Amino acid sequence: MMSTSWVASANGHSDFPLQNLPFGVFRRAGSAEAPRVGVAIGDDVLDVAACLAAGLLDDAAVEAQRGARACASPSLNALMALGSTVRRALRDALMALLSSDVAEHKRLVEQHALVAQREAEMFLPVQVGDYTDFYASVHHATNVGSMFRPDNPLLPNYKWVPIGYHGRASSIVVSDTPVARPNGQRKGPDDAAPTFGASRLLDYELELGAFVGTGNPLGSTIPLSEVENHLWGLCLLNDWSARDIQSWEYQPLGPFLAKNFASTISPWVVTLEALEPFRAPLAARADGDPAPLPYLTHESDQTRGGFSLTLEVWLETSRMRAAGEAPVRISRGSSLDLYWSFGQMLAHHASNGCNMRSGDLLGSGTISGASKDSRGCLLELTWRGAEPITLPNGEQRKFLEDGDTLSMTAYAEREGAVRIGFGWCRGTIAVPSVSSAS
Amino acid sequence: MMSTSWVASANGHSDFPLQNLPFGVFRRAGSAEAPRVGVAIGDDVLDVAACLAAGLLDDAAVEAQRGARACASPSLNALMALGSTVRRALRDALMALLSSDVAEHKRLVEQHALVAQREAEMFLPVQVGDYTDFYASVHHATNVGSMFRPDNPLLPNYKWVPIGYHGRASSIVVSDTPVARPNGQRKGPDDAAPTFGASRLLDYELELGAFVGTGNPLGSTIPLSEVENHLWGLCLLNDWSARDIQSWEYQPLGPFLAKNFASTISPWVVTLEALEPFRAPLAARADGDPAPLPYLTHESDQTRGGFSLTLEVWLETSRMRAAGEAPVRISRGSSLDLYWSFGQMLAHHASNGCNMRSGDLLGSGTISGASKDSRGCLLELTWRGAEPITLPNGEQRKFLEDGDTLSMTAYAEREGAVRIGFGWCRGTIAVPSVSSAS
Repeated sequence: MMSTSWVASANGHSDFPLQNLPFGVFRRAGSAEAPRVGVAIGDDVLDVAACLAAGLLDDAAVEAQRGARACASPSLNALMALGSTVRRALRDALMALLSSDVAEHKRLVEQHALVAQREAEMFLPVQVGDYTDFYASVHHATNVGSMFRPDNPLLPNYKWVPIGYHGRASSIVVSDTPVARPNGQRKGPDDAAPTFGASRLLDYELELGAFVGTGNPLGSTIPLSEVENHLWGLCLLNDWSARDIQSWEYQPLGPFLAKNFASTISPWVVTLEALEPFRAPLAARADGDPAPLPYLTHESDQTRGGFSLTLEVWLETSRMRAAGEAPVRISRGSSLDLYWSFGQMLAHHASNGCNMRSGDLLGSGTISGASKDSRGCLLELTWRGAEPITLPNGEQRKFLEDGDTLSMTAYAEREGAVRIGFGWCRGTIAVPSVSSAS
Repeated sequence: MMSTSWVASANGHSDFPLQNLPFGVFRRAGSAEAPRVGVAIGDDVLDVAACLAAGLLDDAAVEAQRGARACASPSLNALMALGSTVRRALRDALMALLSSDVAEHKRLVEQHALVAQREAEMFLPVQVGDYTDFYASVHHATNVGSMFRPDNPLLPNYKWVPIGYHGRASSIVVSDTPVARPNGQRKGPDDAAPTFGASRLLDYELELGAFVGTGNPLGSTIPLSEVENHLWGLCLLNDWSARDIQSWEYQPLGPFLAKNFASTISPWVVTLEALEPFRAPLAARADGDPAPLPYLTHESDQTRGGFSLTLEVWLETSRMRAAGEAPVRISRGSSLDLYWSFGQMLAHHASNGCNMRSGDLLGSGTISGASKDSRGCLLELTWRGAEPITLPNGEQRKFLEDGDTLSMTAYAEREGAVRIGFGWCRGTIAVPSVSSAS
């Protein structure tokens, strides 16, 4: 179980030990190579299709070879569509290869199939057909609700319905893509009329994302007992939000331009197999809460669908960057603070016959905990700007400013298991987008 | 101007005269042919790629030939991505071909490139990347708002913001696809808890859809002065809605499972050129309403972006069908009752830098007029079921029942122009979707 890789960098405090093997899409930076599927191992990327071409998977299971053939494509969609059996077989084969004692294997991998991550350009790992964002953190829903409805923070449907809404797929970008501050209509409570211009209340939202591997035909459902055959893996997701645009536009149909200018995801998709040692019960459901309806009731117990991940948000301002100061952590929370599991979200989503497709993305919604330092966005951390956070260099932040780099990471660790991490989901706020003639 | 086609069926009261030439995707029903792009002419479909292959476009403009080559594909996306210049050139070439006096042309078209519509199977014309549904009918917004907020029916943002939200792309289906009654959580005001089961308040929504031809890069905008270079054409859209699911789930993030189980569009996409003779000012903006912000102000006048279409909804129950009774029209309205033009919707959508892609679909939202018989959904027509409609055979409807066939059509006519139509957007309510274990 505690096996190690001959890739030395995988065996220290790496996010990417042999036990993780997350999938992404890469090519050598600056090259004209076709982007293709790779697996993170220590400080390197393993080129799966190159392993196949070099004959390194000749002895692997047929299903693993099938999966490896899908890795020549520029997104994970083809591999995802092959389902969980292929994913597991490919993972097993790659794990064997990366821990193999056969010197010839090691030589061939090093020669043909390893690229240093610092020399790799990462691409959006998945072409997302439909992106749905949920609202699965009860602490977040309660905090935000209490700002707008102090006497009735949590709406009556919250503990029955995994609340979600459709997001925008076209503007999902991979980590390190600059994010332009959006323009939009803003109207303060005392303004006679809205004005159009750059958002003044730009925020991030710390989320996990879950990818659908295999979908369901329109008119059919995905029972909760089968969700883990359909879910493929998790990523980090930053649901950038312009709070001033949001508060003016969002009634009655929900957020729109406040959120669809960009959503950033991490380049690596962590599989359910890598997460398996970290199953744990979700902690947000309180005594006295209503039991979920049968179609949302996990068969065994609350452990089903819960994974214990620590989630962190880091901020680096342009002044810090210029002064050579390290980024500072501004929050740390837990995925167990979710009220609904991804399994419940998926079963709910398909419960009306809505069809899922390979590569569809489900966002958890902002993940906030009960304590102040575990709140997953600035709206909550600064309580709508009323309590700015002060950084070590004396700078204050109510919301994000131009030049700020916002980074998220996640990791899982427990006694008796090898720690795994998600890498980074990062974006820097750039100047406002080009204004339309106005 | 009043030219006719040698396809005789195009010259009567057809929806598809020479002046229309809408684009769709078809194959011979029951065949194993590859679906491909066709153009409706009278009772027939013109196979564009077959025209090219038969040499019938050899003398056409280079741009027309480019467009025709894109018509061998199973969706309009490739043609749409070529933009408005190619669309116009191809339209001109096909119009010439279908009105040509050259007997040899006529013979070749009839022999190689005409398929009777009654022998054609129609496919979803466009692979929709992102689908956005607006709320652009002020009468609809006011009616629905007054049911829920009698003292404040129209929210303060309505006359400033083209309200919209993201819809589900995966469940968009072409006309004549059966629609399964969805399951979901329903909770009446007096129920202690929600229950899960088939929707009891199934409704349609009469909408127009607009397709994006060429998009914009993330971070850039589409000024209102340029929207018509980006819009490609219109279709009919039925945004099926489960009102009981909707009222329980929609706060605070908007409609979700109440609407994403199916959205039906018409098979034919009517181009802006076909609509050109029917430009007219939108009529819903009242004296005293605030002027739109500059980025939403049409350069010339309210005529920009408005097209005068008559919209009709027809219902056929299973009892009517069994008795051989004709469908009955239950409403008739006008597209001029929209408060916001598709141009304003598109300019607004991209105003924050959100990227549009070829094939993206914008829905108008339910189109209702001021009079009762022009209301675009049963929720309004029956005032939430309080005033059922009575059909000629004595049947009543508050909402849709199993076996009901709901059909929408639209047409444009005015003195001095040839009438054009949209064909039908139709769906029959089937039995509930397979229930998940519950």
